[in-house]
Amino acid sequence: MRLALIAALVAAPTLAFAADPIKDTVEARQGFYKLLGANMGVFAGMAKGQMDYDAAKAQSAADNIMLLTKYDIAPLYMPGTSSADYDGARAQPNIWEDMAGVQAKGAAFVEAATAMQAAAGQGKEAMLGALGPLGGTCKACHKEYRAK
Amino acid sequence: MRLALIAALVAAPTLAFAADPIKDTVEARQGFYKLLGANMGVFAGMAKGQMDYDAAKAQSAADNIMLLTKYDIAPLYMPGTSSADYDGARAQPNIWEDMAGVQAKGAAFVEAATAMQAAAGQGKEAMLGALGPLGGTCKACHKEYRAK
Repeated sequence: MRLALIAALVAAPTLAFAADPIKDTVEARQGFYKLLGANMGVFAGMAKGQMDYDAAKAQSAADNIMLLTKYDIAPLYMPGTSSADYDGARAQPNIWEDMAGVQAKGAAFVEAATAMQAAAGQGKEAMLGALGPLGGTCKACHKEYRAK
Repeated sequence: MRLALIAALVAAPTLAFAADPIKDTVEARQGFYKLLGANMGVFAGMAKGQMDYDAAKAQSAADNIMLLTKYDIAPLYMPGTSSADYDGARAQPNIWEDMAGVQAKGAAFVEAATAMQAAAGQGKEAMLGALGPLGGTCKACHKEYRAK
């Protein structure tokens, strides 16, 4: 108990965290998707010719997306954080009522991300070929489960 | 060329990305740290007794943090995205002038996160013992490189 107390005092710098679990969770969840979006933006920028295709950059973006598929997002979907619960949240309540449907869409995303990871560094045509299906899996989930 | 054009059209759902690279980058960067913060919040919540210690939840948070240390954050520090460049950004310009210093602080964070990954699931005392040093590495970087 004494040890726990001392350790808790040492941990003081971290006590600013968890001040508002609902807000923190919504913001962290949106952060997760902002990160996915930033990596999608690398592909989109190259597709649109806003930036030159760069195999290393494309591969890094694909690796980042693949890494994020391994992040445990379950805590980011804490009950009480839907668009009906929190102003500014866009995760619709039907997510919590249809977890099997959400997971199926998630699995399609992982599959498309896996294909992108194999293709991204193999030339612009290969990257573009993987981008449509990958973007489609994002859109499919947004259409069903994300508030406007 | 024809193939590229067709592929680009298929990629249309993703064209909403990369609309504003500076804003997108700042928001994605903040998202990255929100995610780190959310996982730190799990430890902090347990340390403060706001939630009971749960080995699986603590381990998941530690694994998430470790995973994020493997995310390639270089694109998130795109030049032109400092607190001097963009309203709302908190990454100070000295980051770009002292990359060696930033990387040293990053390495200390990875070391502390590795220790947390080993400790998090081994009981509350073990988790608390790793939390102080981990929180300290967050704070050390914020103090030097993050705007108020």
